[in-house]
Amino acid sequence: MHAAEDLELVGAVDKDDSLDALASAEVVVDFTHPDVVMGNLEWCIGNGIHPVVGTTGFDAGRLETVRGWLAASPGTNALIAPNFGIAAVLMMHFAQQAAKYFESAEIVELHHPNKADAPSGTARRTAELIAEARRKAGLGPSPDATTTELEGARGASVDGVHVHAVRLAGLIAHQEVILGGDGEILTIRHDTMNRSSFMPGVLLGVRRVQGLAGLTVGLDRLLDL
Amino acid sequence: MHAAEDLELVGAVDKDDSLDALASAEVVVDFTHPDVVMGNLEWCIGNGIHPVVGTTGFDAGRLETVRGWLAASPGTNALIAPNFGIAAVLMMHFAQQAAKYFESAEIVELHHPNKADAPSGTARRTAELIAEARRKAGLGPSPDATTTELEGARGASVDGVHVHAVRLAGLIAHQEVILGGDGEILTIRHDTMNRSSFMPGVLLGVRRVQGLAGLTVGLDRLLDL
Amino acid sequence: MHAAEDLELVGAVDKDDSLDALASAEVVVDFTHPDVVMGNLEWCIGNGIHPVVGTTGFDAGRLETVRGWLAASPGTNALIAPNFGIAAVLMMHFAQQAAKYFESAEIVELHHPNKADAPSGTARRTAELIAEARRKAGLGPSPDATTTELEGARGASVDGVHVHAVRLAGLIAHQEVILGGDGEILTIRHDTMNRSSFMPGVLLGVRRVQGLAGLTVGLDRLLDL
Amino acid sequence: MHAAEDLELVGAVDKDDSLDALASAEVVVDFTHPDVVMGNLEWCIGNGIHPVVGTTGFDAGRLETVRGWLAASPGTNALIAPNFGIAAVLMMHFAQQAAKYFESAEIVELHHPNKADAPSGTARRTAELIAEARRKAGLGPSPDATTTELEGARGASVDGVHVHAVRLAGLIAHQEVILGGDGEILTIRHDTMNRSSFMPGVLLGVRRVQGLAGLTVGLDRLLDL
Repeated sequence: MHAAEDLELVGAVDKDDSLDALASAEVVVDFTHPDVVMGNLEWCIGNGIHPVVGTTGFDAGRLETVRGWLAASPGTNALIAPNFGIAAVLMMHFAQQAAKYFESAEIVELHHPNKADAPSGTARRTAELIAEARRKAGLGPSPDATTTELEGARGASVDGVHVHAVRLAGLIAHQEVILGGDGEILTIRHDTMNRSSFMPGVLLGVRRVQGLAGLTVGLDRLLDL
Repeated sequence: MHAAEDLELVGAVDKDDSLDALASAEVVVDFTHPDVVMGNLEWCIGNGIHPVVGTTGFDAGRLETVRGWLAASPGTNALIAPNFGIAAVLMMHFAQQAAKYFESAEIVELHHPNKADAPSGTARRTAELIAEARRKAGLGPSPDATTTELEGARGASVDGVHVHAVRLAGLIAHQEVILGGDGEILTIRHDTMNRSSFMPGVLLGVRRVQGLAGLTVGLDRLLDL
Repeated sequence: MHAAEDLELVGAVDKDDSLDALASAEVVVDFTHPDVVMGNLEWCIGNGIHPVVGTTGFDAGRLETVRGWLAASPGTNALIAPNFGIAAVLMMHFAQQAAKYFESAEIVELHHPNKADAPSGTARRTAELIAEARRKAGLGPSPDATTTELEGARGASVDGVHVHAVRLAGLIAHQEVILGGDGEILTIRHDTMNRSSFMPGVLLGVRRVQGLAGLTVGLDRLLDL
Repeated sequence: MHAAEDLELVGAVDKDDSLDALASAEVVVDFTHPDVVMGNLEWCIGNGIHPVVGTTGFDAGRLETVRGWLAASPGTNALIAPNFGIAAVLMMHFAQQAAKYFESAEIVELHHPNKADAPSGTARRTAELIAEARRKAGLGPSPDATTTELEGARGASVDGVHVHAVRLAGLIAHQEVILGGDGEILTIRHDTMNRSSFMPGVLLGVRRVQGLAGLTVGLDRLLDL
C-alpha cells in the first residue's frame, strides 16, 4: 500500500495491539480472524471509520449486526468481501452471466496440495451462481450419459453442477469454468500466482468505500459490470 | 432449424431463386453475400418481414440505408450481426468489461491453416474493444521491456493491443484473451468446434427480432448482460 | 486411404460380405467388432495377409491365440492397437516417461456428454502407466492435505492417480495429464477434433506392418521414441 | 540444498570470495556469470572437483576448452546445462520427438513484462529442435494459407517454425508447443511458477555428475528418456 500515491498509511496494528493507533484513519483494512473481526468493526464504525474487510465468516446474522452499527453511525460505510482478487471476482460474475446460454457447465479448480478443503470455497460459490442462473433460465441438468462410473470420476455435485478439484505440487490457486453448447465452448480461467493478487482489489475498496452507501457485500458491486 | 419446435420453416431460397417463396415468412435469415444482401434486405423490409442477417460487409453507409428502409416500414425490425456464435460474442463482451481492471492484455487466436487473413476479424474487433476500454479507464500501454525482438515475435499491434495468430492443421477456430495484473491472470477462451455453433445465436435472433425496435447491430444486444 | 499415393486399396468388405474380396491384399485393416475380429484374423493370417487391427477386446488369451496363428504362418505379422490416434499415443508415452520426475500427477479427461464410461479407457490406461512409473521410481502417493471433501471432488483413484472426467456439450475427446513439482508444472494435452484423427496412425501401421516381426501390440511400438 | 539429506553443503562463496573454502567439496555448483565461470571451472577441475554449471554463455570454443581441462584431470567430470528446469527440458525433448508425426508446429511462449528478449532462448532452442526433426523426417513447411497479414501477426520464424511471444503482467515463465495434424492436436506446456523450479534439476546433476564420463552438456542427458 506504500506504493499507492493517492493514499496515506496512518498506522498498522497487529493482533494484540490497541486499535487507537488507527483513530485518525478514514479507512481501516481488516484481514484478521472471525474471532476478532466483529469487535474491530464495532470500534471502527463507532469512530466513523469506514472498514474494508476481507476476513471470512460473515453469515446473515453478522451482516445484520454490522448494518445495525452502520445505521447508528450515519455517513459511515463498510465493504465486506469474501474475495478481493479482481480476476476471481470477474470469473464468477462472467460465469453467472454466461451460464444461461450453454447446455452444459462444469468447474475444474486446481490448487497446491496443502489445501484442506475440496472443492475450494470459490468453486462452490461459482457453482451455486451457475446453478441459480440455469434455474432462472429454465435449463434442466447438463446432459450426461454416464452409465459406468469409477467412483468420483464425475466429480462432486454442487447444486447439480459438477466440480472437480485437482491438488498438485507446483500449483498455486487456479479455476476454470467450462461452458459448452452446440459445437462451441467458452472457458473462463483464473490464475492466482501469489498473494499480491489481492492488493488491487483492496486498494479499489479503500478508494471507493467512502462513496458507497452503508454496507456493501462483495467486490463485484464496485466493478462497473 | 427443423429441430426448433416453436419455429416453422416457410421456405429456403438459393442464390438464383426468386424471393417470392419467402413472402409469407415473418422472419428471413440472410447468410448470403455482400453483393446481394442489400437487395434482399430492401425486399424483406418492404414486405414487412424482419431480417436476421449474418452476411458481412456492413459499413456505416449500409447501416444508414437499412435504417431508412426500416423508418419507411413501421413495425419492421432488423438484426445484423457480424458473429452469431454466442460464445465468441460473450468472449468479446467480457474482454471489454474486464480490460480496465488489468495492467496488461494480449490476444492469441488459433485457426485452421486454410484461413487467408491474420489476425481474424474477431481478434481485431476484440483488440479494438479492449483498447477502447483501456483508453476510457486512463490506462497507458501494457508494460513491455522488450529490447531485442526477432521480427514478429511480439505479434501484431491492433490499436496498441498485441495480437498473435496461430495457424495449425487440426485446429478449427479458437481465441484466447489473456488479461494480467499484479499476481493474477484472467483468461477468456472461445473454441468453435464446427459450424453448428452459429445456430443457437441465429435461433435467438429469429425468436427475438420481432420484439426489437428498428435496427439492432450485434448479437450482444440480445444477450442480457 | 484413397489419398495415400503409395498404397492401393484392393477391396473393402462390410459386415456380412465374404472376405474373399480381400484375398489379393497384402494388408487388411480391421475396425470391426470383438464378436467377429478373431475369425477375421484367423482367415487373414492363414492367407498370409498382415492384419492392422483397431478392434477392441483383446485380452491376454486372445493375444496368445493370435501369436499361435502367426507362428503357424511364418512371414506374416500383425499389429493390434487399442488407439490409433498418434497424439493420444504420444501423450501416454510422454506421461509415462515424465512421471518419475514429478512429485504430483493427475489426469483430467474431457468428452462429449454421450459417452457412457467415466473415466475413459485412455485415461485409465494413462493413469496405470503413470502409477507404474512412479512405483518403479520409488515415489509414494502424490501429496494431498485434503481433510474436508465434498464426495467425488478429488476424482476417481486409478492405481493411486486421481482422474477427473468432464462431460460437456460441444466437447469431442480431450485429455490433460498434469505433472507438478517444485515450482513447475508440465502439462501434456491431447485434443481429438474428429474421427479422421485415427487415419495417420492406421496408415503408419499399414506401411510398417510388413517389417514388424510377428505380433506387435500398441502403436507406440512403431513410433521411434 | 539444505533439505537434501543425502548431500552435505561444504561451503558457499560469493563473487569476491576465494574458492579455497570449496577445496574439500566433491561437487561445485556454479550459477555465476560468463565473465568468471571459466576461471571457476579451471580451478575446480584442476582440484578434481566435479562442476555442475548453470551459467550461460558456453559456445563451442568454451566447451572445447573445458574438455581439454577434463582430459588433463582423469576421473573428473562436468555437467553444463543451459536449463535446469526438468519440466522445461522434458518439454523440449518431447517436442523434438513428436514433431515428425505432425503436419504443423508452432510455439507460444509467455513471460512477465520485464523480459528483454523475444522470443525466449528456450523458445528459440525448441523451435530449432523441432525444425531439425521435421527436416530429418522430410516434412516441408507447416501449411499456411495466409495472404493478408497485419505485420507480425504470424509471429517470428525460427528456422521456419512460427514462434509467438506474449508479455503480460502476472505471468512468470511459460511455454506451449502446439503440434497439429489431421483432426488432432498435441500440446506440451511448461509453467515455471518460481525460481525454486531449478532446484530438482540441480540436485539431480549433483547426485549424478560423479557417474558421468567427462563433459555432459544438457540436463536431458541425465533423464532416462
